[in-house]
Amino acid sequence: MIRAQVLGRPAEDNALWITADSGQGRTRLLLDCGAGVLHGVPFADVQATDHLLFSHLHMDHVGGFDDFFRATFDRPQPGHVWGPPGTARILGHRFQGYWWNHAPELRGRYVVHDVHDSHVQSFRFEAHEAYATPHDEGTRPHDGVILTTPEVSVQAVPLEHHGRSLGFILREPERVSVDTAALAALGLQGGPWLAALKQGATGELDVSGTVHDADTLRAAVLRREVGGSLAYFTDFLLDGAEQARLAPLLNGVQTLYAEAQYAPEDAELAHRHQHTTVAQVAALAHAAQVQTLTLLHLSRRYRPERWPELLETARQTFAATSFPDGWLT
Amino acid sequence: MIRAQVLGRPAEDNALWITADSGQGRTRLLLDCGAGVLHGVPFADVQATDHLLFSHLHMDHVGGFDDFFRATFDRPQPGHVWGPPGTARILGHRFQGYWWNHAPELRGRYVVHDVHDSHVQSFRFEAHEAYATPHDEGTRPHDGVILTTPEVSVQAVPLEHHGRSLGFILREPERVSVDTAALAALGLQGGPWLAALKQGATGELDVSGTVHDADTLRAAVLRREVGGSLAYFTDFLLDGAEQARLAPLLNGVQTLYAEAQYAPEDAELAHRHQHTTVAQVAALAHAAQVQTLTLLHLSRRYRPERWPELLETARQTFAATSFPDGWLT
Repeated sequence: MIRAQVLGRPAEDNALWITADSGQGRTRLLLDCGAGVLHGVPFADVQATDHLLFSHLHMDHVGGFDDFFRATFDRPQPGHVWGPPGTARILGHRFQGYWWNHAPELRGRYVVHDVHDSHVQSFRFEAHEAYATPHDEGTRPHDGVILTTPEVSVQAVPLEHHGRSLGFILREPERVSVDTAALAALGLQGGPWLAALKQGATGELDVSGTVHDADTLRAAVLRREVGGSLAYFTDFLLDGAEQARLAPLLNGVQTLYAEAQYAPEDAELAHRHQHTTVAQVAALAHAAQVQTLTLLHLSRRYRPERWPELLETARQTFAATSFPDGWLT
Repeated sequence: MIRAQVLGRPAEDNALWITADSGQGRTRLLLDCGAGVLHGVPFADVQATDHLLFSHLHMDHVGGFDDFFRATFDRPQPGHVWGPPGTARILGHRFQGYWWNHAPELRGRYVVHDVHDSHVQSFRFEAHEAYATPHDEGTRPHDGVILTTPEVSVQAVPLEHHGRSLGFILREPERVSVDTAALAALGLQGGPWLAALKQGATGELDVSGTVHDADTLRAAVLRREVGGSLAYFTDFLLDGAEQARLAPLLNGVQTLYAEAQYAPEDAELAHRHQHTTVAQVAALAHAAQVQTLTLLHLSRRYRPERWPELLETARQTFAATSFPDGWLT
């Protein structure tokens, strides 16, 4: 189960807080970290964040980092930060934005990953060194998916924003469950063979002394269910060419969280600042055939009285559009 | 007139917002900048801050810097930051904690001053250079007073906190006014001679063709009034030797704002962490003969139910002690 909570208030900095829960384990992710966004998240949950992912490092996306770091700079488990090229350099500066006279007593550790278009370059920072040295942790290629835990995978999508911004697509793994009724109908008992089957065993399989064909058995007793998914795209240019490039990547995603920076009549401004209009993100949601679109990152340019109209504009192109709960009340 | 507002909530980060107003001009100062402290200050006032002074750069004193910087990084007038040695290095890192791809269009400028015990070393940072280069602005000696504007002067007091922390004493200049009744009684008219008198003229002074002795005239028609004053001392060791050193410096100060970190029974802990107890700061206020003592920077160690008792403890030694308005309600 993947749950997402939009953080921050309308027309202020926003972020996305994500919990991916498999029943056996949990991955907590924070997507962007602008000013005040963590006020809505319990301190203990912030402390347990596994991954902080930045779309980019403009002020309205990184200005709440002190709140995040204060909860996590001295914990036993390492933290991971991901972002476009330059993230490790910028985070390296942020880590050193304190008087660390007590550093030798600390145990925190951060690994910061610069996500290039086809490789990830990682640097480790140690609290006991006052976070002063970026230790080279090497480079590895990626095919878009930069991060996989048992509960979720993260795909980074390069976006244009006067430089590199990153969109993120999060997917739960396919869920495989045992159809107990089918098992009973075949007169079979559970056992280690079921785990082998789930892990992809082929050929002959011994089930309580009887040999079965693994593929036949798998089709009969295992049920596969597509996992949940969401995407977070903010601060990006969205012209026709970009829509054509991005829609196939988003195909089938359940919820797209996207910026709603400009009204349609300000398309020229949006293009100049490499942002989107609500009409453009609705068209992207439509072309990608996502299930729902949630708008965030509203500009202060428009008075709250206009927000319902911006939503209505998006709905004309993509009906299943909404603001986060409570934004219009 | 010097006005101070304690920022932040009880047992959270605190800071002091100060406006010194002469009628002709105004100086705005922020003393420390922990998380969330600026929520109580209008954005336009933050934008107009002239000087940000840090006692030291532990997380709970600098963790709100992003909020401050966001209001001031691109304004026409330069900003000034002051703090113990190391401040320019740490602020240099903070300035670089963003993606500055739009830097060439910016006009902001900061001068950061490292306050050593007997000199100030200054560095200039330019927004259009992405704040990346600390330009050496030289070193100048000081006698304690590090900063003087027409409305206020700031004296830095070295404090011990496992390294250097700074206390600050702010004083308005003496106010000199003309006693118009005395002027009339002497049958004199105002004129340029009054300005000369205020500026300290001595010897013979021509008043409408008649020669007067400047000192006699000054005593007759000018009235001198001591300006307002306050001190802000937080995060510091306060043993007998330190009290003996600090009390004379604070002598005559109107209001002392001081940390109330530990209860008297935790004096050993306070000493180990180079903090104070409420009894110690009350004794300092008493020895210095300040007019009032305001307690801030309460530890989370004590439940709010104990705060009235901590206040009462301080009042036994120094009756004119209080918490900031509204802290106990």
